[in-house]
Amino acid sequence: MGVLCGFLRAKLLECQAQGLPTVAAEVIARFVGAGGKRMRPRLCLLGWMSAGGAGDHEAVVRVAAGLELFHAAALIHDDVMDDSADRRGQPTVHRAMTVRHQPDRPAATAARLGRNLAILIGDFALAWSSELLHTACLPQDRLLEVLRLDAAMRTETMYGQYLDLTAEGSPTADIGRAVQIARYKTAAYTVQRPLQIGAAAAGASPALLDALSDYALPLGEAFQFRDDLLGVFGDCVTTGKSALDDLRAGKHTTVLAVALDRAAPADADALRRLLATPGFGVAEAERVRVLLERIGARAEVERLIQERCHRSQRALSAAGLPEPVSKELGRIAQQATVRTS
Amino acid sequence: MGVLCGFLRAKLLECQAQGLPTVAAEVIARFVGAGGKRMRPRLCLLGWMSAGGAGDHEAVVRVAAGLELFHAAALIHDDVMDDSADRRGQPTVHRAMTVRHQPDRPAATAARLGRNLAILIGDFALAWSSELLHTACLPQDRLLEVLRLDAAMRTETMYGQYLDLTAEGSPTADIGRAVQIARYKTAAYTVQRPLQIGAAAAGASPALLDALSDYALPLGEAFQFRDDLLGVFGDCVTTGKSALDDLRAGKHTTVLAVALDRAAPADADALRRLLATPGFGVAEAERVRVLLERIGARAEVERLIQERCHRSQRALSAAGLPEPVSKELGRIAQQATVRTS
Repeated sequence: MGVLCGFLRAKLLECQAQGLPTVAAEVIARFVGAGGKRMRPRLCLLGWMSAGGAGDHEAVVRVAAGLELFHAAALIHDDVMDDSADRRGQPTVHRAMTVRHQPDRPAATAARLGRNLAILIGDFALAWSSELLHTACLPQDRLLEVLRLDAAMRTETMYGQYLDLTAEGSPTADIGRAVQIARYKTAAYTVQRPLQIGAAAAGASPALLDALSDYALPLGEAFQFRDDLLGVFGDCVTTGKSALDDLRAGKHTTVLAVALDRAAPADADALRRLLATPGFGVAEAERVRVLLERIGARAEVERLIQERCHRSQRALSAAGLPEPVSKELGRIAQQATVRTS
Repeated sequence: MGVLCGFLRAKLLECQAQGLPTVAAEVIARFVGAGGKRMRPRLCLLGWMSAGGAGDHEAVVRVAAGLELFHAAALIHDDVMDDSADRRGQPTVHRAMTVRHQPDRPAATAARLGRNLAILIGDFALAWSSELLHTACLPQDRLLEVLRLDAAMRTETMYGQYLDLTAEGSPTADIGRAVQIARYKTAAYTVQRPLQIGAAAAGASPALLDALSDYALPLGEAFQFRDDLLGVFGDCVTTGKSALDDLRAGKHTTVLAVALDRAAPADADALRRLLATPGFGVAEAERVRVLLERIGARAEVERLIQERCHRSQRALSAAGLPEPVSKELGRIAQQATVRTS
C-alpha cells in the first residue's frame, strides 16, 4: 500500500502548507496502516491480470488503493453507526476523536464531537477514494467503465448496509432477505466489483466481466455466510470481534434465518425469547449456540457455503482465465470454506 | 432541476426492479424538491457561459445537478451532526427516519436507527452526485478537470466543516480563523468551485479559472459574513432558522471574533459570560445583540462585507466576461450585501 501511504502523505503536506488541520489525513493513514486483509486490492489486481493486464501496473495499483480507501470510509461510518469501541486492535475513529477532545469539553459534548468528526473523516475518505480513481491516468473508455462499476459498488454497499440496519433487532425466518443482505453488503462490495474494476482498468470485455461475476457472487455470499457463522461460533481471539455482538444486536443473519425457518415452533419460540433477553450475555449466547446446533442451522449454513464455493469454482473453471490468476482465485474460494477469522 | 428529478426517478425504478428499498431515492428527491436557492447550479451554468459554453447544455446541466446533489448530501450530514429538527420547512432526514421506524421500536433505538439511516442516505447522495458528473458525457480533458475541481470542492467543504465543528463552543478573538472557516465552509464550496466547474465543463483556460476565483472568493466570504450576521440579528421568519442557534452552539463566527477582538476587557468578559449561560435563551440573545452593537462589531462586519463585495466587483470588471454573464454575476454580488435570508 505504498501508493495509498504516498497519497495520504501528500494530502497531509497540502494541509500543512495551507494551515489546515492535518488530522483527517493522519487518522485515515493510521487506520489503513493498522491492518485489514487487503482483499479488495488483491482482487482488483487479479481482475486486471485476468483481462491481460501486464507490465506497468501503476494505474491499477492506484485504483486498488482507491478501493481500500473506500473500504476504510465504509468501516469508519459503520463503526459510528454501531458505536463500536475497537477496530483493527485500536480504538475506533469516533472513540479516538472523543478522547482527543475530552480535555476541553464536557463528556457528552466530546462524545458528540467525536462522532461528528468521524462522520466527516469518513466523508474525507470517500472523496479521496474517488480522487485516487480519477487520477489513475486511465484512458477515457476504461476510466468511464471503472467509474461506472465503482458507482455501482458504492450504491450496492449502501443498500446492503441499509437492509442490514433496518432488519436489525427483528431476525425472521426470511432466508431470501438474509441472502440479499449478504449479496449487497459483501458479495458485490468485497469480491465482484473489485475484480471487475481491476479487469475494466485493463479493458475487459463485457463477457469477461460477466464471467468474473459468476465466480464472485457465490463466493462473496459464502464469505458473508462464513462471517455469520463466525459471529456466533467464532473464537473472539481469532476473529477479533466478540461472539456476542451479532446476537446482541439481533442481526438478521443467514444462520438465524435458517434456524427460525427449520425449527419446530417450540424451538423457534425459545430462540426468539433468548435473543430478546435483556442484558444478553455469555450464558444466553451459549444456549443459542446449543439450539442452533440442535436445529441443524449450523450444518445447513455450512452446506450453503460449500454449495456456493462449488458454484464459484465451476464458474472459475469455465472462465478460462490465465493459469496463475485462476489458481489464485481458486485458492481464495477454497479459503472461504475453511477460514476461522 | 428536471435532470436531477429524472436521475433520482431512474434510481428509484432500478431499486424497484431489484427488490431494493426505494427510500433513499425517495427521501433525497423530496429533500431536493423542498427548496433551496439553487445557488450552485446557477453559478455552474454562469461559469460555463463565461467560458464560451453555448448551445447544447445537456452536459453542464448534469454537472450542475451533481453539485446540487452534493449540497443535499452535505446538508443531510450537517443536520445529523447538529441534530437539527427542521430543514427547508420539513423535518430533517434523520428526524423523518426516526419517526418512520418508531412504531416497531423503543424510542432510543428508533432515534439511533434514524440517525444511522440519515448518515447512509447522505452517503448515497455523495455517491450519486459523483455519478452525475461521470455520466455527463464530457470529453476526457474536460471531465478530468471537472473531477479535479470537484475533488477540491469536496475536500475544502469538509475542512470548513472540520474547522467549524472543532471551534464550536469556544469562540475567540481570532478573526483569521473565522475568515478561514468562511473561506472553506462557504466561499470555495458555494461560489468559487461551482463557477470553476461550470467553466471547466466548457474548456476554460487556467487564466479564466483564476479570474473567476478572484471574483468568487471575496464574494463567498461576504456571503458567510452575512450569514453570521443573520444568525444573530436575522429575523427567523425570513431566514428560516432561529436567531439563537449560532449563539447557543457557540459558533466561531466573524461577528463574535470581531467583537471579542475590539471589546474592552469588561465587555469581552460580559460577552463570554453571556454566551456560556446555561439555558441560553431569547433574553440572553437580546443582551448579546445590544453588546455587539455597542462594541461596533455589527458595523465592522458590515464594513468587511462591503469591502469584499467591492473587491469581488473589481475582479469581475477586470475579468472581461461576456456581458450577460458579467451582469448576472454583478447582481449576485450586489445581493450578498443586502440579503435578509
